[in-house]
Amino acid sequence: MKTPVILISLLLFSFSFSIKGQIVYHDASNFPLLGKATENTYTRYSRLPESLKSISRGPVWELGKNSAGLAIRFHSNSTTIAAKWEVLTNNLMNHMTPTGTKGLDLYCLLDGKWTFVNSGRPTGKDNTATIISNMKPEEREYMLYLPLYDGTVSLSIGIDSLAEITQPKINLPVREKPIVFYGSSILQGGCANRPGMAHTNILSRWLNRECINLGFSGNALLDLEIAELISEVDASMFVLDFVPNASVEQMKERAVKFYTIIREKHPDTPILFIEDPIFTHTRFDQQIAREVKDKNDEINAIFRSLKEKGEKNIYMLSSKDMIGHDAEATVDGIHFTDLGFMRYSELLYPVLKKHIKE
Amino acid sequence: MKTPVILISLLLFSFSFSIKGQIVYHDASNFPLLGKATENTYTRYSRLPESLKSISRGPVWELGKNSAGLAIRFHSNSTTIAAKWEVLTNNLMNHMTPTGTKGLDLYCLLDGKWTFVNSGRPTGKDNTATIISNMKPEEREYMLYLPLYDGTVSLSIGIDSLAEITQPKINLPVREKPIVFYGSSILQGGCANRPGMAHTNILSRWLNRECINLGFSGNALLDLEIAELISEVDASMFVLDFVPNASVEQMKERAVKFYTIIREKHPDTPILFIEDPIFTHTRFDQQIAREVKDKNDEINAIFRSLKEKGEKNIYMLSSKDMIGHDAEATVDGIHFTDLGFMRYSELLYPVLKKHIKE
Repeated sequence: MKTPVILISLLLFSFSFSIKGQIVYHDASNFPLLGKATENTYTRYSRLPESLKSISRGPVWELGKNSAGLAIRFHSNSTTIAAKWEVLTNNLMNHMTPTGTKGLDLYCLLDGKWTFVNSGRPTGKDNTATIISNMKPEEREYMLYLPLYDGTVSLSIGIDSLAEITQPKINLPVREKPIVFYGSSILQGGCANRPGMAHTNILSRWLNRECINLGFSGNALLDLEIAELISEVDASMFVLDFVPNASVEQMKERAVKFYTIIREKHPDTPILFIEDPIFTHTRFDQQIAREVKDKNDEINAIFRSLKEKGEKNIYMLSSKDMIGHDAEATVDGIHFTDLGFMRYSELLYPVLKKHIKE
Repeated sequence: MKTPVILISLLLFSFSFSIKGQIVYHDASNFPLLGKATENTYTRYSRLPESLKSISRGPVWELGKNSAGLAIRFHSNSTTIAAKWEVLTNNLMNHMTPTGTKGLDLYCLLDGKWTFVNSGRPTGKDNTATIISNMKPEEREYMLYLPLYDGTVSLSIGIDSLAEITQPKINLPVREKPIVFYGSSILQGGCANRPGMAHTNILSRWLNRECINLGFSGNALLDLEIAELISEVDASMFVLDFVPNASVEQMKERAVKFYTIIREKHPDTPILFIEDPIFTHTRFDQQIAREVKDKNDEINAIFRSLKEKGEKNIYMLSSKDMIGHDAEATVDGIHFTDLGFMRYSELLYPVLKKHIKE
């Protein structure tokens, strides 16, 4: 006599659970992925093509597996958005939040503006997080940013069992003529509090234009195969932000070669060079102050020599106002906090906006 | 014949090592500690007096061991500043940097302004970090902020073996008539990237006035023994920022009692109430939107009733402009990033400046 009662109870419980809050997960590989230089990458959520595995230096190849700057676009009417994701190395850094290194970050197009919804906070290698709930069941366009300093092995998006998830119905950010950024740990998003605050992600929202993040922490050493990869992109602008990593000697040896590889395939596309940030501890540490000065002298000398040779559509961005003047915008003198990334984006935005319109 | 040669080599090596870079550590307990409501705390680097151990709720007592808002002042001519410190729980949070939870943060008085030097990044329970090096051997005034979301068990400051560390020679920030803040996880510094970016620490630098941080993550529930502790401080202003934690019922039951305990001992001191922040996900999550509205309606009703009863020197700060209008200033909809703390400080600064001068 007991079994049927238990069965009925279980059935009632399941039924009420599915009505009230069951979340169904959908593999994100069915939805558009923004931010890649080529579709032909090693895995869906990595940044370099397999062909570079035997060519690139080890650290560049490994950093290429980090999903910095990648974002999934989708449309849903769900009242809850959740996610399940597996990261590659379960990376932990002492000056960056786990949410920034290996978390997710959800934005929604609200009154024409990409608006922060909430972050997906990681717990380890395998993660499940409810990003937002208690929403009205309205149709919305979403953009979900992937981890900045870890690889994304797999990703599923969770919605209410009775809701729908579909392809985006609005093609924003514009994917034609993206902006390609090449650079260091700062470009890769170190140390944004959440993935959406890396400056390429901020600028992609503000400009509503796809941005491609080729930031390689500690390894923007002007590797020429990366210039070849960059040159394959039909971009509206190229941003070369390698001075934080490349030494004066490396710049002397390879900066013009790196530039020329891109320029040969894109004779008229604007190319922006960026000075080394005036790291805030240059006010105290004489060695780092000298290093920043020497590097900025060198990149400006290279820029002047390109101009003197008659190169057109090249620009230099001074770092004088890059992250403000109060010395507060970094976590360690070097890596930008969200405050630094916001200030850097405010400096870059008008420059990029002007050039991609031309 | 071999022994003397080895001995001489060792002696020469030690000598050259001590000249070039030996760091000598000095116990920080010999230097002034700013940010405590009472000198009579459980340990030097905790925030509550031992007498509350058997009175306060467990979580309040435990959070009182976190060194949020505490700072060591010293003077040195060293070219390097290093630190050794042990933390209590080796706390890790997925939405805050380890540097913010359990790291150190060094500032220096430069041309009359407290200027970020660098952070001390933690590696675990026991930590050693070089904070800055390669400085000119000049006399400088320093302020070293302690961990926000962990306890500080011990702390030593490292300087060049031939340099000096002394008591501060300038009495800034002003320690007479400090400002006392009572509040939630946000007040405790969640989620600043480094300790100096908690808003009480920012404001203490900008106002050059000691600030006392009684932020208890998730536990600003108007515990009356904390009001008693606050009332012991001869403050220039009291800032009551409990709405993010206290429920409408808790406010109805205890907000006036909490206020009255402070007011009875300080009949003329300005007391500032602060609304719940408009958490950024209120744009999407209807439940949190309703909760924020209900709480802000309640704190405003309490404020109006105090005014109607003739209470003087009380003020209400609207949260309308607290963290800007772009929804970008939090890591999780709730907790401020450095961008949020900077905006919140910019809102609070003129209000506090006006009142502490009166």
